[in-house]
Amino acid sequence: MTESSVARTPQGDPAPQQAAGDGEAFVVFTPSGRRGRFRVGTPVLEAARKLGVDIDSVCGGRGICGRCQVDVAVGHFPKFQVDSRAGNLTEPARQELRYAEKRGLAAGRRLSCSAKLLGDVVIDVPETSQVHRQIVRKRAEARVIDIKPIHKLHYVEVREPDMHDPSGDFRRLCESLREQWPDWGIAADVSCDLPVLVGLQKALRQGDWKVTVCLREGRRVVAVWPGFREKVYGLAVDIGSTTMSAHLCELGTGEVVASGGVMNPQIRYGEDLMSRVSYVMMNPGGEVELTRVVRESVNYLAGQVAEEAGIVREDIVDLVFVGNPIMHHLMLGIDPVELGGAPFALAIDTAVNLRAEELSLALHPNARVYGLPCIAGHVGADTAAVILSEAPHGQDAMTLIVDVGTNAEIVLGNRHRLLAASSPTGPAFEGAQISSGQRAAPGAIERVRIDPLTLEPRFKVIGSELWSDQDGFDEETRRTGITGICGSGIIEVLAEMYLAGILRHDGIIDGAAAARSPRIEADGRTFAYRLTPEVSIVQNDVRAIQLAKAALYAGARLLMDKMGVETVERVILAGAFGSHIDTKYAMVLGMIPDCRLDRVWSVGNAAGTGARIALLNAEARREIETVVRRVEKIETAVEPRFQEHFVGAMAIPHATAPYPNLAAEVALPERPAPGEGGDEGGEGRRRRGGRRGRG
Amino acid sequence: MTESSVARTPQGDPAPQQAAGDGEAFVVFTPSGRRGRFRVGTPVLEAARKLGVDIDSVCGGRGICGRCQVDVAVGHFPKFQVDSRAGNLTEPARQELRYAEKRGLAAGRRLSCSAKLLGDVVIDVPETSQVHRQIVRKRAEARVIDIKPIHKLHYVEVREPDMHDPSGDFRRLCESLREQWPDWGIAADVSCDLPVLVGLQKALRQGDWKVTVCLREGRRVVAVWPGFREKVYGLAVDIGSTTMSAHLCELGTGEVVASGGVMNPQIRYGEDLMSRVSYVMMNPGGEVELTRVVRESVNYLAGQVAEEAGIVREDIVDLVFVGNPIMHHLMLGIDPVELGGAPFALAIDTAVNLRAEELSLALHPNARVYGLPCIAGHVGADTAAVILSEAPHGQDAMTLIVDVGTNAEIVLGNRHRLLAASSPTGPAFEGAQISSGQRAAPGAIERVRIDPLTLEPRFKVIGSELWSDQDGFDEETRRTGITGICGSGIIEVLAEMYLAGILRHDGIIDGAAAARSPRIEADGRTFAYRLTPEVSIVQNDVRAIQLAKAALYAGARLLMDKMGVETVERVILAGAFGSHIDTKYAMVLGMIPDCRLDRVWSVGNAAGTGARIALLNAEARREIETVVRRVEKIETAVEPRFQEHFVGAMAIPHATAPYPNLAAEVALPERPAPGEGGDEGGEGRRRRGGRRGRG
Repeated sequence: MTESSVARTPQGDPAPQQAAGDGEAFVVFTPSGRRGRFRVGTPVLEAARKLGVDIDSVCGGRGICGRCQVDVAVGHFPKFQVDSRAGNLTEPARQELRYAEKRGLAAGRRLSCSAKLLGDVVIDVPETSQVHRQIVRKRAEARVIDIKPIHKLHYVEVREPDMHDPSGDFRRLCESLREQWPDWGIAADVSCDLPVLVGLQKALRQGDWKVTVCLREGRRVVAVWPGFREKVYGLAVDIGSTTMSAHLCELGTGEVVASGGVMNPQIRYGEDLMSRVSYVMMNPGGEVELTRVVRESVNYLAGQVAEEAGIVREDIVDLVFVGNPIMHHLMLGIDPVELGGAPFALAIDTAVNLRAEELSLALHPNARVYGLPCIAGHVGADTAAVILSEAPHGQDAMTLIVDVGTNAEIVLGNRHRLLAASSPTGPAFEGAQISSGQRAAPGAIERVRIDPLTLEPRFKVIGSELWSDQDGFDEETRRTGITGICGSGIIEVLAEMYLAGILRHDGIIDGAAAARSPRIEADGRTFAYRLTPEVSIVQNDVRAIQLAKAALYAGARLLMDKMGVETVERVILAGAFGSHIDTKYAMVLGMIPDCRLDRVWSVGNAAGTGARIALLNAEARREIETVVRRVEKIETAVEPRFQEHFVGAMAIPHATAPYPNLAAEVALPERPAPGEGGDEGGEGRRRRGGRRGRG
Repeated sequence: MTESSVARTPQGDPAPQQAAGDGEAFVVFTPSGRRGRFRVGTPVLEAARKLGVDIDSVCGGRGICGRCQVDVAVGHFPKFQVDSRAGNLTEPARQELRYAEKRGLAAGRRLSCSAKLLGDVVIDVPETSQVHRQIVRKRAEARVIDIKPIHKLHYVEVREPDMHDPSGDFRRLCESLREQWPDWGIAADVSCDLPVLVGLQKALRQGDWKVTVCLREGRRVVAVWPGFREKVYGLAVDIGSTTMSAHLCELGTGEVVASGGVMNPQIRYGEDLMSRVSYVMMNPGGEVELTRVVRESVNYLAGQVAEEAGIVREDIVDLVFVGNPIMHHLMLGIDPVELGGAPFALAIDTAVNLRAEELSLALHPNARVYGLPCIAGHVGADTAAVILSEAPHGQDAMTLIVDVGTNAEIVLGNRHRLLAASSPTGPAFEGAQISSGQRAAPGAIERVRIDPLTLEPRFKVIGSELWSDQDGFDEETRRTGITGICGSGIIEVLAEMYLAGILRHDGIIDGAAAARSPRIEADGRTFAYRLTPEVSIVQNDVRAIQLAKAALYAGARLLMDKMGVETVERVILAGAFGSHIDTKYAMVLGMIPDCRLDRVWSVGNAAGTGARIALLNAEARREIETVVRRVEKIETAVEPRFQEHFVGAMAIPHATAPYPNLAAEVALPERPAPGEGGDEGGEGRRRRGGRRGRG
């Protein structure tokens, strides 16, 4: 039969009884439903590729890689009018038996490159055999991660040179690629990196004219290894101003094979971003030093995760990085001083495509680097990554995303419109500026409940699964001690204090409560709540959180104004801090606007997830590059209403905004009538100078 | 009026009397003949760009660069029905007067960006004002060099950043480029090199938001300088195995502003190419050393020509190099050992596009490098450059090109078909293997005439314009002395010896001639011809030249066989050696096949010219990349007929081939009948091992 009778669409003809020519077999692939007739003896993989069915391969059909495994469905399929039998494929040939012996092959599984059609069959392609497989994320509402690899391995056997028909080794390599990998969209004008060229002749001869090629976007050879090679890796890096993290992914499967983190070494030049910009301003050329140390840390992280995964750093061919604008620019070696003052001009707001070498990154010599686009002077590539991960532009529902760190980046919108801003929350949410505050580490109080009658607390500390009133708690926490309270703990204790009537609507620790419990202690002219002998919550702690949460809320509210909405339908709390807080308490404190509680999620390091998506999916890069251009940027510093919203948001949960969804789930204390002393946000000092990036 | 009524073709309407609306002017541009109507007040440059008339500009119409000068034709033009008057343009405005004062402006010349239409005019665009101007070459038959710049300077005024509408500096730069340079084909997605990005913010602020951008192919920013900048440069480098040469060109005009040459430093690793490959074989890693020294020499040359031109090497943004396959591969850092033995496999036979940095070339930090494609294991990028320069593929006439050096590269063909081969001539043509031979240098005999009756010679030496029998010759040559004979001299003396009957058809110096002149001296069992007291021509000298010229002729003849032709219509002698020899004598000796003498040209360093064309013309790069793919490569080493042709070509001019065109111009001695001892080429030893590249 000819190829022209192949049906390339899942629907309709050809059905098996039609045109059942001699020596032909009918094959249906599931789950795609694509089907067609092929000459008896056609390998299943070849039939699949001709039908556009997505089956992976690294060895190009030589029975080496095992990526092309399929299941033969056995039985009668009335829908397809096919009696599918295992015997309608050839018996396993030598190469398939060898593969099964060496690597194992589950019952019923066949290598589709080796198995050939003898009669009609239904072939199921498991998810793991697809190039464009999906990574399902834990949260049901999260987008799946599609894999559309940018770098793909291709094993090829290259024709040897012939004096009578002279052609360069690279030309023959490319010809072999196109011949042995038809239907894979390999470009007609494949080019290559210089180091590949320098090593090409040796690799071809070492591999006895069999090599594995790493092809970028189907058109650029970035690596050639002698013989067969199955895996290649990429690194997704999130450069926070406090911590840096990296995920090492196998690019074929998307599997995270190792993760690592490290403190941002720039901290020695200033804890927050503004101090680092000041350092550069005071020390001309200081940006070179800041760039050097951040790149060194990326190199360190790369080495760390490579070692953990048992690979060498030269196996890493791609790196994606995200970070706030200052981190992003410093990573690129761009002096950040323009970002230190109005008009906060970015050097570049588009995605950057570079070679790792240009950034002095020690990975594969031809490794590439992709930096997600920054959005505005205060809204960085990290926010772009959060958008990519959480995809508000794919939602009908009005979605609010807050990435809570030293600065809060705020995104509001849906498929029709997106707004973004940053808001200067300061470091209180991270436990700084809190009398007993500390970073989230073993020994820190992270959960708190207060009995509304007795005002007695119970709590959990990091390092133990037990509550403080459970047996064995003291023993379990003896090693770490109880050293302080971290960001999520402070949120919970304040919310519980509010719910228990210890904390007033206006944020004052109520001295009247001292009558109810000795835990309310006088502290100069104010009061404090003693949580443990070591940890108490003082009035200034409340003020610090009030200022931070008011900034956060005011930013969100400003975007809601711009959007012309009074409520949001979904709220996503991103960032390391967000991943630990209880969304209910965040709402009780009024950090975020009212919303149905089952539509509020803490998603952890969404920026890191976005970086990983960009690493694994070529289309995702185009997607975010397009989406960020549509984002409308709001500069909170110059919006008069920001101040107004800030004042209203100082109260708990808010001076005026109703919280009907929250009230339906939580017994909120009654708010005082207006003028009854609840609304005193006017004393909230704004600290625009204290702009800081996500930690 | 609207743009839609603009005629974009040189032919036909609109004529001035038609639709002569109020407040409109009719303008005709010569020599293109493009014409159209425009609103009164439209700048001439704007009208030209809208009509697609080619007028250059660097400043974008600000009266700074003066590249857009035009002449107003004055008088009645019946062909266009226009009365063209200088007064139909506005008077010179301030910026034009300032330009005229500072830089000078010829009478009648106007800056087309400044002059505005008041009435109907005919505007002549001089060649020097065109972007795509042509460089006419000295030889009438040579192709003109069209300039289609790859790198173009654009002066732009960039919008300042605005906090309320945040966008990166690079985005605003690109927007300004497209706005201020419409109709210049600037891409929608201009990208930039990392060092540009790193320096961008400073450049913009230093230049008070006015910068000059160097744009590569209309889509990649490779440099940004504060303020206005007029010129940018490129380097065309020819890497010969003996000498390396470089031409520094202004990329806007194509002008060669400086040239330089240097010995190839690899000579210390072996005088000929094969010894250098042997060096690498004997000294693993030796290719690194050979690569280092050749790149260092390119850097040295760049510095030398930059200094000569009064620029800095950082002003050089583009470099094109050519060379034989071994030089080409070594320049790229590719081990050449595969080229040292059959099957002579090139690593790559396509053009290479690199960054200068990748080759450790110290030019502009973002300078690019283009390497012309190699054709086969023995036919390199230098031959591709010769083809680009001499364009046999543009000819109807069957054209033979020989690039004579240590190896001879031979190309035969026309617009229908092209063949190429290399032939191992050895270094005899360069004066090596000749008893009194020397390189072409002052003191070397380069021209010889022998009186056919007296057998007395007269000659010229390099460094003097006088013949040896002219008054003052002794005085003029006293300083240099007469030190030997160079390649062109040996060709002439042998040809004259043959014409005078001293040299027999079979290449034997005829002892019988000793009776006619004491200059024929016995030299052991053979004879010699004494040219001067210091220089005589011995039998072995004749043998060396016979071997070399037989190899050259046999290669050419082999290609003629493959082409199926008995004669050629044009012969081009390229290479440094070719530039000095008298084509008539080359034919008398039988180096090249018979051809009309006025169709034989010596063209000098055509490879260097080809490199220069590729430097100046983007389309030429595409052209040669396409043409070389069509070239059929003939490997002389494995062609049985090569040996046969070689034997026949040992005789002078040839054992059997008739030379009717030559005979019509030169009185050739009668050849002996077959078997009379003329044909003894059988003793010609082949020296395939002695393969060497163009010097």
